[in-house]
Amino acid sequence: MAQVTAEGSAGHVPAEERIAVFDNDGTLWSEKPLPFQMIFAMDQVRSMAASHPEWKTREPFASILKGDMQGLARSGEQGALAVMAATHAGMTTDEFQQAVQQWITTARHPVSNKPYTALVYQPMLELLEYLRANDFKTFIVSGGGVEFMRPWTERTYGIPPEQVIGSAGRLKLEQHDGHPVLVKLPAVDLINDKEGKPVGIQSRIGRRPIAAFGNSDGDLQMLQWSMAGSGPRLALFVHHDDAQREFAYDREDALQKFDKGWDEAIANGWIVASMKDDWKVIHPVPDQAP
Amino acid sequence: MAQVTAEGSAGHVPAEERIAVFDNDGTLWSEKPLPFQMIFAMDQVRSMAASHPEWKTREPFASILKGDMQGLARSGEQGALAVMAATHAGMTTDEFQQAVQQWITTARHPVSNKPYTALVYQPMLELLEYLRANDFKTFIVSGGGVEFMRPWTERTYGIPPEQVIGSAGRLKLEQHDGHPVLVKLPAVDLINDKEGKPVGIQSRIGRRPIAAFGNSDGDLQMLQWSMAGSGPRLALFVHHDDAQREFAYDREDALQKFDKGWDEAIANGWIVASMKDDWKVIHPVPDQAP
Repeated sequence: MAQVTAEGSAGHVPAEERIAVFDNDGTLWSEKPLPFQMIFAMDQVRSMAASHPEWKTREPFASILKGDMQGLARSGEQGALAVMAATHAGMTTDEFQQAVQQWITTARHPVSNKPYTALVYQPMLELLEYLRANDFKTFIVSGGGVEFMRPWTERTYGIPPEQVIGSAGRLKLEQHDGHPVLVKLPAVDLINDKEGKPVGIQSRIGRRPIAAFGNSDGDLQMLQWSMAGSGPRLALFVHHDDAQREFAYDREDALQKFDKGWDEAIANGWIVASMKDDWKVIHPVPDQAP
Repeated sequence: MAQVTAEGSAGHVPAEERIAVFDNDGTLWSEKPLPFQMIFAMDQVRSMAASHPEWKTREPFASILKGDMQGLARSGEQGALAVMAATHAGMTTDEFQQAVQQWITTARHPVSNKPYTALVYQPMLELLEYLRANDFKTFIVSGGGVEFMRPWTERTYGIPPEQVIGSAGRLKLEQHDGHPVLVKLPAVDLINDKEGKPVGIQSRIGRRPIAAFGNSDGDLQMLQWSMAGSGPRLALFVHHDDAQREFAYDREDALQKFDKGWDEAIANGWIVASMKDDWKVIHPVPDQAP
């Protein structure tokens, strides 16, 4: 850090170029048993079911309503897209934001029974603070939905909405009762994952980050893009190897594989942080929870 | 301003919600005789012509190379799109940024013979400073190309790349000689004008601005969107009515009409600033030029 911040040092980076990017799911908070946004979507299906009687017999909604996770899994990517379209589109951005706010403050994680925002990683909160204390601007660059994250990232991570980049659906300006509203359309604008992450970074930030943090192969292109610039740079993968205190998964995981990224990290000398060996605590202790 | 910044005032707005958005062309700098990005594109056609012998006989390139502005105008929107595709796509973002840097530091405005960045508006520079001194975050929200603006907005306006929102083409991650690059594709990602401005604001900032500044009907939806929130808010149009010191155009202008916006401003009590009557100086005096 000293070489980056010290004026006159060979590795000095002007404050305005100190951009650090963080994946969210699995990097700043947990992502098991399912990415939390998927649990939100399933909860939304349940709370919207009364006005959708047809869901009782239509997959994957029927499986969700019966609590049949294997039936949901059988519906595959098509099923997941149908759930996302039904729960994330056709409403205004304000309505969606309220639904997220309501859920994030009341819902509980199925394994730990804690609020989801208590499942952030304490060492990463400290890293965010440390970087900002050294005039870094911290961004989230996540495959998760941008409108799902923005309602709570500022109070949870200290990262304001305008520094949150995520997957996004198309928006359309309409007039409702003479007031302008933005309606969420069931069409994709940006898939901010894998090769989409450098695209999201360039289109939203317009500068190459000098520090990048991820935990799976979906973050590999973001780390490669960040490390391909000149001057001092830092890349780090969080390795989920602590089944005792969190979850353990890497090369063989179906949803969040850490395989090619791990090989690249070793080959390039990037940091691989072991949650088991390197992290004294995983989540904030309750009275420090954000 | 006092009611916005004073803690405990009824109109207090927390610093993180003090978002101000500015159109660029005609609001922060001049846009006549043509938007400067269009002049850049024509200059690019001239400098690329040697490797495109077919342009000598293909419109609208032939007209540009002959300096025939009327021939260019006859090619209409299709012609403009062809010029943009030829000069703004098919290269990497780094290459395009270098081309813009080179042009903006050397090209001269055809009427004033000044560098384009000398044609910014001094009162708007002061307004940007004043807002930032009161903890506002200032953004550009322009129909112009985001990759065209970012290379010079930080030193010209104090607005960093990550606070510049503009029209954008699609980007694609590729490997060139083992290095990741982003290639600009000839496909539109966002037209950040008219009803596209609230979309750009929501997708990139994710908060509703409390102050919005424009100069033409292309900015109307941005001002409406910004004014539709609760609490203290400010909307202002710059009126180009000073043919002597700058340019005079409004309701009848072919490219940058200020007509419906003017009516709405009067109906809603928004500010319409007369460049002729309200601005003591238009451009920075030379030794203050950014």
